[in-house]
Amino acid sequence: MIAAMRHVAEARRFGDHVRKRREARGYSQERLAEGAGLHRTFIGRVERGETNVTLYNIIRLARGLGVKPSQLVEPLD
Amino acid sequence: MIAAMRHVAEARRFGDHVRKRREARGYSQERLAEGAGLHRTFIGRVERGETNVTLYNIIRLARGLGVKPSQLVEPLD
Repeated sequence: MIAAMRHVAEARRFGDHVRKRREARGYSQERLAEGAGLHRTFIGRVERGETNVTLYNIIRLARGLGVKPSQLVEPLD
Repeated sequence: MIAAMRHVAEARRFGDHVRKRREARGYSQERLAEGAGLHRTFIGRVERGETNVTLYNIIRLARGLGVKPSQLVEPLD
């Protein structure tokens, strides 16, 4: 339960960062989804911290946002 | 199929980096597993690039290796 809660906290921090980066770019969720090759509803789930995103999807999100994967993960440092 | 192959290439690059960091620390897979709170066989799968590791497990691996999550992801930049 505690581990699950930690996962949620970290997923939320990651999701908040994705949203911040997306809004800084002036992208809609739809536009990021297209650029990342992911589904629009998945972007929403990521931003709300509802998913424990995989490495490959971190890479796709980073590409869609024009940042490095390591930059996208930085809020978890 | 191409997407699946990309995932494998990136998982292998990540796994090679985990192994390199682990060996630089002088840790066995067992010791990293204990420090990261993960199973020993999972460490082996990660290092062989056999799994699309999740954000939460990236964080655990980074903790076990004494590095930042962003440092662990850097080879994918």
